[in-house]
Amino acid sequence: MSVATAPSAPKKVIIDTDPGIDDAMAIFVALRSPELEVVGLTTIFGNVYTSLATRNALHLLEAAGRTDIPVAEGSHVTVKKATKLRIASFVHGSDGLGNQNFPPPTGKPVDQSAAAFLVEQANLYPGQVTVVALGPLTNLALAVELDPSFPSKIGQIVILGGAYSVNGNVNPAAEANIFGDPDAADIVFTCGADILAVGINITHQVVLSDVDRKKLEQCDSKYARYLCKILGLYYDYHMDAYSTKGVYLHDPTALLAAVNPSLMTYTEGVVRVQTDGITKGLTVFDNTKKTYGEITAWSGKPTVKVAVTVDAPAVVELMMQRLMKDY
Amino acid sequence: MSVATAPSAPKKVIIDTDPGIDDAMAIFVALRSPELEVVGLTTIFGNVYTSLATRNALHLLEAAGRTDIPVAEGSHVTVKKATKLRIASFVHGSDGLGNQNFPPPTGKPVDQSAAAFLVEQANLYPGQVTVVALGPLTNLALAVELDPSFPSKIGQIVILGGAYSVNGNVNPAAEANIFGDPDAADIVFTCGADILAVGINITHQVVLSDVDRKKLEQCDSKYARYLCKILGLYYDYHMDAYSTKGVYLHDPTALLAAVNPSLMTYTEGVVRVQTDGITKGLTVFDNTKKTYGEITAWSGKPTVKVAVTVDAPAVVELMMQRLMKDY
Repeated sequence: MSVATAPSAPKKVIIDTDPGIDDAMAIFVALRSPELEVVGLTTIFGNVYTSLATRNALHLLEAAGRTDIPVAEGSHVTVKKATKLRIASFVHGSDGLGNQNFPPPTGKPVDQSAAAFLVEQANLYPGQVTVVALGPLTNLALAVELDPSFPSKIGQIVILGGAYSVNGNVNPAAEANIFGDPDAADIVFTCGADILAVGINITHQVVLSDVDRKKLEQCDSKYARYLCKILGLYYDYHMDAYSTKGVYLHDPTALLAAVNPSLMTYTEGVVRVQTDGITKGLTVFDNTKKTYGEITAWSGKPTVKVAVTVDAPAVVELMMQRLMKDY
Repeated sequence: MSVATAPSAPKKVIIDTDPGIDDAMAIFVALRSPELEVVGLTTIFGNVYTSLATRNALHLLEAAGRTDIPVAEGSHVTVKKATKLRIASFVHGSDGLGNQNFPPPTGKPVDQSAAAFLVEQANLYPGQVTVVALGPLTNLALAVELDPSFPSKIGQIVILGGAYSVNGNVNPAAEANIFGDPDAADIVFTCGADILAVGINITHQVVLSDVDRKKLEQCDSKYARYLCKILGLYYDYHMDAYSTKGVYLHDPTALLAAVNPSLMTYTEGVVRVQTDGITKGLTVFDNTKKTYGEITAWSGKPTVKVAVTVDAPAVVELMMQRLMKDY
């Protein structure tokens, strides 16, 4: 027997982002998902420097005709004030959007830092705001420092970050978003918020093939057409780095975990981040099943959910559906 | 068509050991394996301090009636001269052998350090000596420092150490033998020798159940009878730490990899060890499949073999066979 339920109100979402080609995909999917209400974008360094991330966030909202959504600019440095940042321009282009040389946006970011915006929204709508964090976790760590009640007031934080029981993508130890600000990541993972982490052990299973790309090219959705313009460089990178004709859908996968959590299964435990040495940025998940002889750095810390399996074809299909139809 | 082959000469083996209850099992299995010729034991801290490891190595050889085998005492400190060591007396007893208060051995170690003995044997029998390393890798790192040609002259090093894609047993990051001297482990893993690493991802699959223990108790082999005397504490520890009635056969499993490598399957790649921070002692294996954007700490380092699957019932059965029959 099935029971009809009233459609629930869309989930308020803030996307913390460093656009970024797959960030652009995730933002468009979010704007096209009736399950979500995008209440703002916050920007961070990662695929590009923060100032360019802000420019690209404004540009993408203009391309989508959604200039009603505020953009709050995030930190230009790590929580430890490091300014030597790892920027993945070799993956996303020096403009972050496939070297397409788009004109500057006409809009401006709000007069509020990303961290202040995150804290404000969490206080305005306690327990109702989901943050989908697609870059280094600096803004979220600053929000925790700004307001110690942030972890309990934010609804959920979906983190695209970490490499759980697999090699990283910056080096064998570390995934790029965690590597970008390991100290911030350790603060966020242990802050006590409701956290759902999607690592590259998951997103490396979710591939947009060149066949899928052709389908996007042949449809008449403005979102798909825009994305096809910027995807070339991203395909080239994947061929060079992984010898594959497809591209990993990192950011859209994490975004879709917020749309439909049942696309994945999860385990629960404590995640800590190594902050220096050759494994800087490494995420170590403790399944909390073993009683250690001594107190460890994981002992007594809050647990988080970490995705362990994904219905990859369903994720790709849902993303394609959302991007291909103009409605 | 099968071709009969002449039995090959037994493999010369040096066991680097910190006895230790499962070390005692491994040493006895080695002495009972016609495939191996045990040419010496070298001792190291780990389950006990080095001086007690030497005492126990001499005692075990006397219990087995094999005082012809030399014992060379190893380092009392890590390669960085740290004297604050992690000693697992809560697993093996304060005497390392289940708190049985055995009388002191009558024999003495040879007048040569473990590192010097390892180098000497490798030079005497180039390419023919296998080291089965059951404790922290300090002696092997010192052998590499003592003689840069040691990695090419030693036949193979079978390392019981590391936690590959699983949690550690000292803490969620680190396995005990690597944690005991991470700097030494990093030297050995990258020294270029033929290395086969067996981690707790493998040995946690190889369990001596309480049913197996009863079989050992009921047989009339002196080896089995001796081991049953010392096993009680080891079972108690596993019940406390893992809530299991069985015990992990760490050391015998690594030893049997030297007897019959086909009991496991292996992957090949580069292993580096984190030497400080909360993940000190963590082993990170790089499968060398991905081309990273930057040079990493793994780039260009020699590869090693890491066990990925094990025929656990066959390992347990082989160990039981070797221990239960007096021949």
